[in-house]
Amino acid sequence: MISVVIIGNGNVAYHITKAFLKADNVDVKQVYARSINKIAYLKNSVSITNKLELLKDADVYIISVSDDAIPEVSSMITNKKALVVHTSGSVSLNLLQNKGRKGVFYLLQSFSKSKEVNFEKIPFCLEAKNKKDLALLEELALTIGKKIYHINSQQRQQLHVAAVFVNNFVNHMYKIGNDICDEYNVPFEVLHPLIMETATKIDFLSPKEAQTGPAIRNDQKTIKNHLDLLNENQQEIYKLLTQSIQNG
Amino acid sequence: MISVVIIGNGNVAYHITKAFLKADNVDVKQVYARSINKIAYLKNSVSITNKLELLKDADVYIISVSDDAIPEVSSMITNKKALVVHTSGSVSLNLLQNKGRKGVFYLLQSFSKSKEVNFEKIPFCLEAKNKKDLALLEELALTIGKKIYHINSQQRQQLHVAAVFVNNFVNHMYKIGNDICDEYNVPFEVLHPLIMETATKIDFLSPKEAQTGPAIRNDQKTIKNHLDLLNENQQEIYKLLTQSIQNG
Repeated sequence: MISVVIIGNGNVAYHITKAFLKADNVDVKQVYARSINKIAYLKNSVSITNKLELLKDADVYIISVSDDAIPEVSSMITNKKALVVHTSGSVSLNLLQNKGRKGVFYLLQSFSKSKEVNFEKIPFCLEAKNKKDLALLEELALTIGKKIYHINSQQRQQLHVAAVFVNNFVNHMYKIGNDICDEYNVPFEVLHPLIMETATKIDFLSPKEAQTGPAIRNDQKTIKNHLDLLNENQQEIYKLLTQSIQNG
Repeated sequence: MISVVIIGNGNVAYHITKAFLKADNVDVKQVYARSINKIAYLKNSVSITNKLELLKDADVYIISVSDDAIPEVSSMITNKKALVVHTSGSVSLNLLQNKGRKGVFYLLQSFSKSKEVNFEKIPFCLEAKNKKDLALLEELALTIGKKIYHINSQQRQQLHVAAVFVNNFVNHMYKIGNDICDEYNVPFEVLHPLIMETATKIDFLSPKEAQTGPAIRNDQKTIKNHLDLLNENQQEIYKLLTQSIQNG
């Protein structure tokens, strides 16, 4: 049985708290939030607090707060025997300011409170300073998940940038597609099957192999026709990405 | 029973031929390809030819060849009673050069010969010059599919540009994500669940509502950190897309 204290009430904290409360081999000792109202819904299931000085003893402290707050919050954890981890994709392990053991417990997925999470499909990216701590984090991750990766701080930073491309920027491509459809009263849903196919395809083809379209074919006629249909901002993006595809 | 002749042997022609041959209310009279070897695999199921002058009579001729070849190929169809359609996303109905009825039978999906197609999920974007022909195309589409849209030539052109954004450019974002992972020996598969989540999310949120990340939060510190990790080409794309997200 691993005992944990969860610090934070953002989307990640919300979902892991819910999952750990249901897990067999985890004892959630306490949940902390700066504003107690935000976690009042938990008060019948677990001890809650808004005072970092009153944190209970636990094996693992999971800090799931905004990136900027991680150093300060971690410095307040006085339990030197415990393992203190954060859940951020972009913060180095070394920015944890507690005096004892340190680690990272990064779940690579986009969370929103309104959407259920299937933890079995989520990659747990784990880091610690020694094998024993890494083993503890693995054991903890496996109480709710299945996919475990050992990812060091530098790799995690790279993953985080890569995630901006495949999540934030991809979503922005959807937004532009939606804008283009709206302008001519075409329902955006017509594009949904293509969007799903594009995402599914890379399960069995590399993105390089999966590339199709006028850019990779260097079909200048179609490229010109397309540019004529776009506004200035869309044109700029179209040109840059076409060039980038052609440069391989 | 609708009789059809299919002209072409690309990915679309390949899959619709297969589907129509199995459909109950369609009689595939003939399949044409410039090179007879490419359709030799069909010779036990259907009449094949490589001579446009020898096309059989049919209710509908489906031209599924490269965009540039559509005018010439359509001009060779002498049957004036039949409905002649092409399957291109970017060619106007009026570029069909046959003397009789004209239409468009555009399947909005990315096809590859090696991958099975579920026609029930594919949007059929139909266009014709009158209601009767549109009804005939609907009837034909419903023998293999379920999702029917009436899309005129201008809307179809717009859809085709939008498809470049949500398919070609999205895939290029995956490619860049993959490149970034490769550089630091992170398995790209770690990002697959996030990629699927990003694609699935827009089924219940608009892309505008679904946008997250450092750009929309205007998190300058993370943006700077990310830029430091990228090569010149990646930086240029990162900057332009960040700006575009911030301009809404």
